[in-house]
Amino acid sequence: MKIDLNSDLGESFGPWTMGDDAAMLDVVTSANIACGGHASDPETMFLTLTQAADRGVVIGAHPGYADREGFGRRVIPMQPAEIGRMVAAQVGSLQGLAALARTKVRYVKPHGALGNLAADDRTVADAIVAAVSALPGHLAVLAISGTELELSARAAGVEVWSEIFADRAYLSNGRLVPRSRDGAVLHDAHLAAERLVRFLETGHMPVIDGGTIKLAAQSVCVHGDTAGATDMARAIRARLKGAGITVAPFLG
Amino acid sequence: MKIDLNSDLGESFGPWTMGDDAAMLDVVTSANIACGGHASDPETMFLTLTQAADRGVVIGAHPGYADREGFGRRVIPMQPAEIGRMVAAQVGSLQGLAALARTKVRYVKPHGALGNLAADDRTVADAIVAAVSALPGHLAVLAISGTELELSARAAGVEVWSEIFADRAYLSNGRLVPRSRDGAVLHDAHLAAERLVRFLETGHMPVIDGGTIKLAAQSVCVHGDTAGATDMARAIRARLKGAGITVAPFLG
Amino acid sequence: MKIDLNSDLGESFGPWTMGDDAAMLDVVTSANIACGGHASDPETMFLTLTQAADRGVVIGAHPGYADREGFGRRVIPMQPAEIGRMVAAQVGSLQGLAALARTKVRYVKPHGALGNLAADDRTVADAIVAAVSALPGHLAVLAISGTELELSARAAGVEVWSEIFADRAYLSNGRLVPRSRDGAVLHDAHLAAERLVRFLETGHMPVIDGGTIKLAAQSVCVHGDTAGATDMARAIRARLKGAGITVAPFLG
Amino acid sequence: MKIDLNSDLGESFGPWTMGDDAAMLDVVTSANIACGGHASDPETMFLTLTQAADRGVVIGAHPGYADREGFGRRVIPMQPAEIGRMVAAQVGSLQGLAALARTKVRYVKPHGALGNLAADDRTVADAIVAAVSALPGHLAVLAISGTELELSARAAGVEVWSEIFADRAYLSNGRLVPRSRDGAVLHDAHLAAERLVRFLETGHMPVIDGGTIKLAAQSVCVHGDTAGATDMARAIRARLKGAGITVAPFLG
Repeated sequence: MKIDLNSDLGESFGPWTMGDDAAMLDVVTSANIACGGHASDPETMFLTLTQAADRGVVIGAHPGYADREGFGRRVIPMQPAEIGRMVAAQVGSLQGLAALARTKVRYVKPHGALGNLAADDRTVADAIVAAVSALPGHLAVLAISGTELELSARAAGVEVWSEIFADRAYLSNGRLVPRSRDGAVLHDAHLAAERLVRFLETGHMPVIDGGTIKLAAQSVCVHGDTAGATDMARAIRARLKGAGITVAPFLG
Repeated sequence: MKIDLNSDLGESFGPWTMGDDAAMLDVVTSANIACGGHASDPETMFLTLTQAADRGVVIGAHPGYADREGFGRRVIPMQPAEIGRMVAAQVGSLQGLAALARTKVRYVKPHGALGNLAADDRTVADAIVAAVSALPGHLAVLAISGTELELSARAAGVEVWSEIFADRAYLSNGRLVPRSRDGAVLHDAHLAAERLVRFLETGHMPVIDGGTIKLAAQSVCVHGDTAGATDMARAIRARLKGAGITVAPFLG
Repeated sequence: MKIDLNSDLGESFGPWTMGDDAAMLDVVTSANIACGGHASDPETMFLTLTQAADRGVVIGAHPGYADREGFGRRVIPMQPAEIGRMVAAQVGSLQGLAALARTKVRYVKPHGALGNLAADDRTVADAIVAAVSALPGHLAVLAISGTELELSARAAGVEVWSEIFADRAYLSNGRLVPRSRDGAVLHDAHLAAERLVRFLETGHMPVIDGGTIKLAAQSVCVHGDTAGATDMARAIRARLKGAGITVAPFLG
Repeated sequence: MKIDLNSDLGESFGPWTMGDDAAMLDVVTSANIACGGHASDPETMFLTLTQAADRGVVIGAHPGYADREGFGRRVIPMQPAEIGRMVAAQVGSLQGLAALARTKVRYVKPHGALGNLAADDRTVADAIVAAVSALPGHLAVLAISGTELELSARAAGVEVWSEIFADRAYLSNGRLVPRSRDGAVLHDAHLAAERLVRFLETGHMPVIDGGTIKLAAQSVCVHGDTAGATDMARAIRARLKGAGITVAPFLG
């Protein structure tokens, strides 16, 4: 049994630091690196690319709405074609810096509000997939399991991998429990790790109202933007290892 | 005899228009397209890329300091390595959009204060050349004739072409007369065109204090950001044609 | 009979010019000056403040979403309290520059998507009115006639004045015909001026489907961001004068 | 004996936090609040204003170059008059938010590279003082002791107070030892506190090469952007109290 761990990294900006990227890069096998839209700048991107490459962590681009104040968590009204161009510009920017760092961007995972919209709105998903597909480097898509983005990439013949969340509760339709609802976020690293091991062993994920749901995933998203989150990520990796599960990139 | 005409284009931003790109793209054979630093945004870049490709105009990237308020005309204090990363991010962004527009970026010409600094400061020139050289696509450099940037590119084995200015007077050392000095800018399209034809026929450029200087150039920079400038560009092209000079891209 | 003419001005940014502010300031009696959110910067604000003060044009602040790419025409998701703080910061900024220019900001009119939201959403209107009311200088509100913003200001005891649009068709409920519908925008300066004179003489505005509606207004918004718009503004002012109507600021 | 403690606060931005403002506001008696130029945004400004007012901490504006990437530590080439307008816009913005928070801005202290330039360049100092003087609220200036800014404010009849640094070594000419030189920064809280007490008791500050220099100061700048810095600030306050020195705002 094998699974990838991914995390959103490179989200510092200018003099401001977010998370402990160096620590997380010792835990994850794939790094979603911000591209200067919702976070980051050329210095941060280059540093994170270099740190990831040095550790053999696979590099993905993490484009988001060009809205630093809102950290890409607000939907900025845009046409799908405008979204496609924003994504091409951001991923291209990271690819340029990856070339300078003598490494490569391998996949794309949209961030925050853009990721949520691409999960639900096929026209947005299609625009993102069209951009990914046009960019050089045979980029894959990393999508939330069961979303329009996953379907769109599959329909377009773009390589696509699916992720689940280590610290989020699920509904019986396979979607995440909204953060506004009690129990939406798992704060106990031990429980989160156990749930994950059971899922990997059975393919079935417990849902919030009881019972389980069948999910497919090649990657698990872990968070690293708080001290507690880093600890949870470490605990999950240790528990997976203890259960005999190989933690390795979804892209070989 | 053959010469390229290049111009700085794609310098609009959001709701604000600069110059008449469509008109200039009918005059020039190479387009230096802004990359979202001193000007432009993904929409403007994509539109200009498309318009240039439709007309068979060769596309270059025109990176500049990330300073829209100052339009890239102010030196922002940065280390050479930071400049290299800024250039890689900006050119990469234009390359991403070029891929989406099914066309290619072929060369890089630094803008404004960055171009001036790269002309005089070898460490800055080397940082820019290192970035250009690391980026994919075998990019050439378009440099002001006789500058450190030209020497740096040549030393690094990067393809380099040289430009002169249609509307700027020259000093006997081959540098431009500073704008603050009388006679620095030629406003008469007829005189500018005649001077250019003579230069192309002889390889010698008149200097402001009398006499001439030997210059090498494969391209002539013409401006398009004012109505008068567009007229001068058209007049120059017509005069070149009248003199039997072929106007064609320096990159075939 | 007396009416004010207002226009959105000071919408240039850095090297980019929008409209012909100097020409419009000879036509209007009140100037809504952008505050660095959707457009403008300290240089543009200071210049426009100075030009307006020199001509005796009354100065208003024109805050909008902090979204230059979208020119304040996109709704950026924000809580009403966040909107109030954004408005206080922007109007305060213009007030600071007005103090430096030895003049005063007299009223506030929200721009674009913010103005539209404040017209329909009372919580947003209340947040803006609370900010206006807290700021020094006894600022008035300039609101579209019949909107929640007008009602909110009235309820809060803040001085409020109402505007109509010279070049927009009306529905029978007093709202503007959406731009997407045929006939929404009047392009004929003569017709627009005639409609306006009739409204000022009767208090009744023709509606798009026939008939008229009773409206109250102390100001007419004219546009100046295109050459044609400037001509229309001049034509309207001339026609009002010809009809014996005094064009004067709503704030004496 | 009495002294003020001031610190640079409100330097978070959007999702990024800098320092522990709440902790520092329990230590200092004056708060220099960033104005959206080198750091901050309306939400951060409003929160910091509210937190300072709640604790009775005197509020100052801390304008800096509009350069978040560089955190206001880079000199952006600008004319003195442009600097004056930038300062008026930023301080006005903080004043607008202070009005909304039912408190007042009492003084202005320029940040980083702008503060350094205003210390050495009288034309820049004069432009800042002219802006401060034109703004409403009878604002004072907080200047580094012995600088052109202090002299400029005094010459213009603007209230001015002087500060020294708790953690920086001094040269015999009264200027700070450049950070590049060994011993420029004091890292030991105990030594820094002792030095300060001795200075307050004698008016003489030890200089790096031995001996002392006479300085005048009504305020001491303490830093709060790292955990260690917060501890040093607390230690200094405790030591001052232990020495019977009153810690109170320079503005009563």
